Amino acid sequence: MDVNGRHYRTIWLNDDGWSVEIIDQTKFPHRFETVTMRTVEDAAHAIKDMLVRGAPLIGATAAYGMALQVRNDSSDEAIDQAYELLFATRPTAVNLRWALDEMRVVLRNISREDRPAAAYNRAAEICDEDVAICEAIGEHGLEIIRDIAAGKPAGEPVNILTHCNAGWLATVDWGTATAPMYKAYAAGIPIHVWADETRPRNQGASLTAWELGHHGVSHTVIPDNVGGHLMQHGMVDMCITGTDRTTATGDVCNKIGTYLKALAAHDNGVPFYVALPSPTIDFTVSDGIAEIPIEQRGGEEVARMTGKTDAGAIETVTIVPDGSPVANYAFDVTPARLVTGLITERGVAPASREGIAALFPERVKEAVSP
Amino acid sequence: MDVNGRHYRTIWLNDDGWSVEIIDQTKFPHRFETVTMRTVEDAAHAIKDMLVRGAPLIGATAAYGMALQVRNDSSDEAIDQAYELLFATRPTAVNLRWALDEMRVVLRNISREDRPAAAYNRAAEICDEDVAICEAIGEHGLEIIRDIAAGKPAGEPVNILTHCNAGWLATVDWGTATAPMYKAYAAGIPIHVWADETRPRNQGASLTAWELGHHGVSHTVIPDNVGGHLMQHGMVDMCITGTDRTTATGDVCNKIGTYLKALAAHDNGVPFYVALPSPTIDFTVSDGIAEIPIEQRGGEEVARMTGKTDAGAIETVTIVPDGSPVANYAFDVTPARLVTGLITERGVAPASREGIAALFPERVKEAVSP
Repeated sequence: MDVNGRHYRTIWLNDDGWSVEIIDQTKFPHRFETVTMRTVEDAAHAIKDMLVRGAPLIGATAAYGMALQVRNDSSDEAIDQAYELLFATRPTAVNLRWALDEMRVVLRNISREDRPAAAYNRAAEICDEDVAICEAIGEHGLEIIRDIAAGKPAGEPVNILTHCNAGWLATVDWGTATAPMYKAYAAGIPIHVWADETRPRNQGASLTAWELGHHGVSHTVIPDNVGGHLMQHGMVDMCITGTDRTTATGDVCNKIGTYLKALAAHDNGVPFYVALPSPTIDFTVSDGIAEIPIEQRGGEEVARMTGKTDAGAIETVTIVPDGSPVANYAFDVTPARLVTGLITERGVAPASREGIAALFPERVKEAVSP
Repeated sequence: MDVNGRHYRTIWLNDDGWSVEIIDQTKFPHRFETVTMRTVEDAAHAIKDMLVRGAPLIGATAAYGMALQVRNDSSDEAIDQAYELLFATRPTAVNLRWALDEMRVVLRNISREDRPAAAYNRAAEICDEDVAICEAIGEHGLEIIRDIAAGKPAGEPVNILTHCNAGWLATVDWGTATAPMYKAYAAGIPIHVWADETRPRNQGASLTAWELGHHGVSHTVIPDNVGGHLMQHGMVDMCITGTDRTTATGDVCNKIGTYLKALAAHDNGVPFYVALPSPTIDFTVSDGIAEIPIEQRGGEEVARMTGKTDAGAIETVTIVPDGSPVANYAFDVTPARLVTGLITERGVAPASREGIAALFPERVKEAVSP
């Protein structure tokens, strides 16, 4: 997407043909800086210290990390070492393991001389595939927005509420939840996005607001508490969120607080859509609330807040009293009954076992007889 | 309630018999400091700059402000002047006007010499009346907590979720939503309170956590996004919130985000109670969502966050990107259908026109023929 009028992906090959550039997302929203990765260690650092985040972008960064390693040392031992190093950065990230496995498959059984080119090719493909999936999600979501716009007085924006950042910055380009927004913007359909702040890590207030703002999409940052009130007063036409994991039955695990917005949407007749690349559907899980374990993260994410002082410095302040315990559940599960539809790269599926199976029959078959 | 083992109200007469002490709530949660009010101007400053907040405490502060003025100058002109000065500090605060009118009634038609004593007496009464109302709310709420505790294995705490600060610090003592918690604590019933952070002003993370912690009540601060997840997993036994204004039909206007918690409670069969002094029931309003105008406050409350740096300084940081608009709706309305009961000083009423009228028949009559 665009930053101040220039097109960017979140990761790209530099003009030297081998080093890889990323955006340092730890500096958001107050600074836009890129970082050059020249070694597999650089890539591991970028993932571990969250210079990059979001499943697709983590996968792409790992793939290029492997390419950087192979360019330097294309032996089997070096490949194994890079695999271990990169995998250990975020061992629960499904997409990270997938990308590393993809790289290993490509590098196996070819000569050491051919490996660097093969590695760079596959890393580039992984990026392009992600862009294609996100763009397809955007096209399918665009049709929903177009329909809603058609039902409104001409020129009135379609108001879209989103939670967290399932955005361009979490993928290689377009994003998942944001892809329909960027497509609608490009199609000249007037939209306005309510960006939930998304406590405690503030991905909405920092990342979503930043990327929409720099691309030129009209938006407003709101505290997570506000969405219900807006929906009661007809100020939200639809919700679109991302998801980390969706069950075979359409239950949606996503950033903590998503469930509350889905409840409000249901209570007010506002359609609630979830945008997802189909690899995030987990066909082994049927009951999201009962079966998906919810990660608890460090309390300091709740108790401390980082921002820019009036003097321009980046500072972290503590906002709870000394001695008060805090809890930090990272995700929640929205039951399928509250989800209007799943926007996938193949089209929009009802959030049900039948709806998902109809779009992805081969995945159901795999899950039954793996 | 107690602060580090010593009993405090939020406002009290000093030992000199005339100056009035308050807790400077702008210093929370990182500092506990009291301020001495010696003039009506001190009282006006305390209200205007939010050293005190919460309708009952604002009323009590205004009453003592009038007493301080009359001690200094007991003329009709001085009384009128103090009325104007104090009323202008927060002209929309219903309780502020009520307290000032009460003071004027007492001071009218008595000699100038008798006025100082009368003023101090009435101010003290206003404080004591508030304490009595809050304590009665606490007693009625205690019975609900006792019933829930009886249904749990012995020793397991009753988990109570609250939003914002309808606490001791907003009243003269006890609080409204917190009164049942303090009563249960005193009765030896094990409780644990989930304190919603309450963005954007963080009253839960700062005030509620502070007062519960200093009194010794077990609690955990959570982001506003978390409550739904906790309720899905049986980790909340009941919710108790306060309210700024309740309609004759039981719709509850309270801090933004209350509605989302009520939806989650309803979806998970968790009882949702609202604690309120009956003067906050507005018998002229029937449809809260349609009729109650919602205040929009400055965006800086969302965009900026104040806390304590690691060096111990109080610092404010900006947390949204430059140029991103923010919206700050201060309240929302929870429809009566989501409210299990209203805990008032006269007992627990169903959140319905009939339920409220049965407890407060004389108020209904007043509203019909004022």
